[in-house]
Amino acid sequence: MNLDTLSVSKEGAVLFVEIAAPPMNLLGPELVRDLVSLIKEAEPDEAVKILVFKSADPDYFIPHVDVTRIKEYRQEAAKLTGEASLALLFRYLSASRLITIAQIESRVRAAGSEFVLACDMRFAALESAIFGQFEPAFGLLPGGGAAQHLTRLMGRNRALEVMLSAQDYSAELAERYGWINRALPAAAWAILSDHWLNGSPAFLPPATQPSRTGSMLSHWQRSRTFAGTPMHLAKQYESPRRKVEFARR
Amino acid sequence: MNLDTLSVSKEGAVLFVEIAAPPMNLLGPELVRDLVSLIKEAEPDEAVKILVFKSADPDYFIPHVDVTRIKEYRQEAAKLTGEASLALLFRYLSASRLITIAQIESRVRAAGSEFVLACDMRFAALESAIFGQFEPAFGLLPGGGAAQHLTRLMGRNRALEVMLSAQDYSAELAERYGWINRALPAAAWAILSDHWLNGSPAFLPPATQPSRTGSMLSHWQRSRTFAGTPMHLAKQYESPRRKVEFARR
Amino acid sequence: MNLDTLSVSKEGAVLFVEIAAPPMNLLGPELVRDLVSLIKEAEPDEAVKILVFKSADPDYFIPHVDVTRIKEYRQEAAKLTGEASLALLFRYLSASRLITIAQIESRVRAAGSEFVLACDMRFAALESAIFGQFEPAFGLLPGGGAAQHLTRLMGRNRALEVMLSAQDYSAELAERYGWINRALPAAAWAILSDHWLNGSPAFLPPATQPSRTGSMLSHWQRSRTFAGTPMHLAKQYESPRRKVEFARR
Repeated sequence: MNLDTLSVSKEGAVLFVEIAAPPMNLLGPELVRDLVSLIKEAEPDEAVKILVFKSADPDYFIPHVDVTRIKEYRQEAAKLTGEASLALLFRYLSASRLITIAQIESRVRAAGSEFVLACDMRFAALESAIFGQFEPAFGLLPGGGAAQHLTRLMGRNRALEVMLSAQDYSAELAERYGWINRALPAAAWAILSDHWLNGSPAFLPPATQPSRTGSMLSHWQRSRTFAGTPMHLAKQYESPRRKVEFARR
Repeated sequence: MNLDTLSVSKEGAVLFVEIAAPPMNLLGPELVRDLVSLIKEAEPDEAVKILVFKSADPDYFIPHVDVTRIKEYRQEAAKLTGEASLALLFRYLSASRLITIAQIESRVRAAGSEFVLACDMRFAALESAIFGQFEPAFGLLPGGGAAQHLTRLMGRNRALEVMLSAQDYSAELAERYGWINRALPAAAWAILSDHWLNGSPAFLPPATQPSRTGSMLSHWQRSRTFAGTPMHLAKQYESPRRKVEFARR
Repeated sequence: MNLDTLSVSKEGAVLFVEIAAPPMNLLGPELVRDLVSLIKEAEPDEAVKILVFKSADPDYFIPHVDVTRIKEYRQEAAKLTGEASLALLFRYLSASRLITIAQIESRVRAAGSEFVLACDMRFAALESAIFGQFEPAFGLLPGGGAAQHLTRLMGRNRALEVMLSAQDYSAELAERYGWINRALPAAAWAILSDHWLNGSPAFLPPATQPSRTGSMLSHWQRSRTFAGTPMHLAKQYESPRRKVEFARR
């Protein structure tokens, strides 16, 4: 993939995407254009299952939109969804079959926070990640999903606090509030991600013999159900289920 | 404002309200009457945006209702909502345009807990705040909102635990369970509140030049939207949005 | 009660149930049969209010189903609900008037996790409890309630992480994510459970005189409401309320 503001590398079914839009990774027309290209290329490619986003800038993941070029980046967003709206681009990403993970080591604020909230999962470096939803300090509502996502993730009281205070939140507090999955030392992410993305047999109980494991696997692969539950009885929240179904293909 | 059980002082758009109903801040007719007066006076006053409640009693914020005067305090509550019900008084407060913050340094139990749950946000002193929803120990359901609020804030499992155990919970555990926004040292509240209520420029990214900030501000104030999202596309939970909209006026 | 895989002892209104299905507490036909017998006997018995489940095996609470005997355990489950489905057995347990508590000191994975998620409350030993929802590693969806329960308890992002990673989670992290009520040292459970299950007067405020307490109690027992709120005004989530109502009888 040839993109000006995104460096993409592929390992197995994972695309590692590094955001590099100097001088500070503003969400402007170039970055939106490249995100649209990335999604359009990755989504129909069955060999790609997971996108992991990180930043090439040690200070900024995405700090906010480029307010001098709003009309331009809206036009780029419209190329994916038909609507000149960042919010619908983010919504598209959330609903995509692609599993999206934000690996955050610096500042995400305003629309930057809304971008990572649109991802399926968010992990942040304890040492350096910073979160903020500062729009209300400018007399504005966050319009790209933060009001909804934060209310669901952390409850009305904490979402109101985050938006009305307009303050910065550390990774540690962001985890306590539910903004992110987990805050962990930057060095620990590599281990977690390696275990996880490559699959680890560590979860198998010690007493399970290899032959038994093979038999379990073979049975479960045939039946496509678990614990004897016909799928039509399992009323599941649609989105997590669809993502899991995709992942198991 | 001339109230027997509430000391009110005004700083900017904030009313600081100290509950002082000796001997132990029981929620009785006088306190309910004064809360009704406070709300009736503050709500139509456009110069008031925020109410911060604290207690003048070092041991009790509000421990429970005055069970010897139920009919009387119900009659006082009816003067606000038309219904002789504390629960509807609390509900009125939650739905009010006023932003309400409970600063808790002592015991909130039973209807006292329900009062702070009706506030938009709750902060508690790590050293001394205590939380309890003990009604089930007397064979009763909490009827003033606790069953609903706690279930949403902490999940069915923890809400059942809190109600069925009828035990006291520390500020630290109350934060882990989601009962409150945050437990913090009593001394830290002053700093947080000062940063927050007076607005802090600390959230502006260092690289943002003053002129740029002015331009952002001016743009956003004109457009009344953010990130290019038309408001009609942003389906937001009604209550947080309304509180944020109010705060930005 | 005479059951092969469950040791049951009664203290007051509590049945303490120890799962002992060697060699590793697999959820197979015998254990399902005995769970069905237990529920059928305990539910109509008004002297029983609470079931506390623990494991006799120091390594396994319930690690997963016995995949070699799926048809058989489904047939046992059908004897309670009419459907050959573990998921409906778990659902039955959640909706039961019985208050169910899982005391977890070892591994709960897959359907074992779904069993404890079906309980009303979950407490885990910090030292030794382990949680996993590993079905997706075998190309399967958890079909017995985990997808739904985990999404509600920990949010879509963390539920996706747990299921897609298929990793083991410590008790401490399980608490932070909301999988369980609380992780605490194994020794602390005895104290908590004793305080709780036997009722503790500790929650009464020091300033409350005994005579006053008696008067409160007597009043509240008469009125069956609290804080002056008519019950028909209290729209409560159905399940927590029903469990609380049952507990106060």
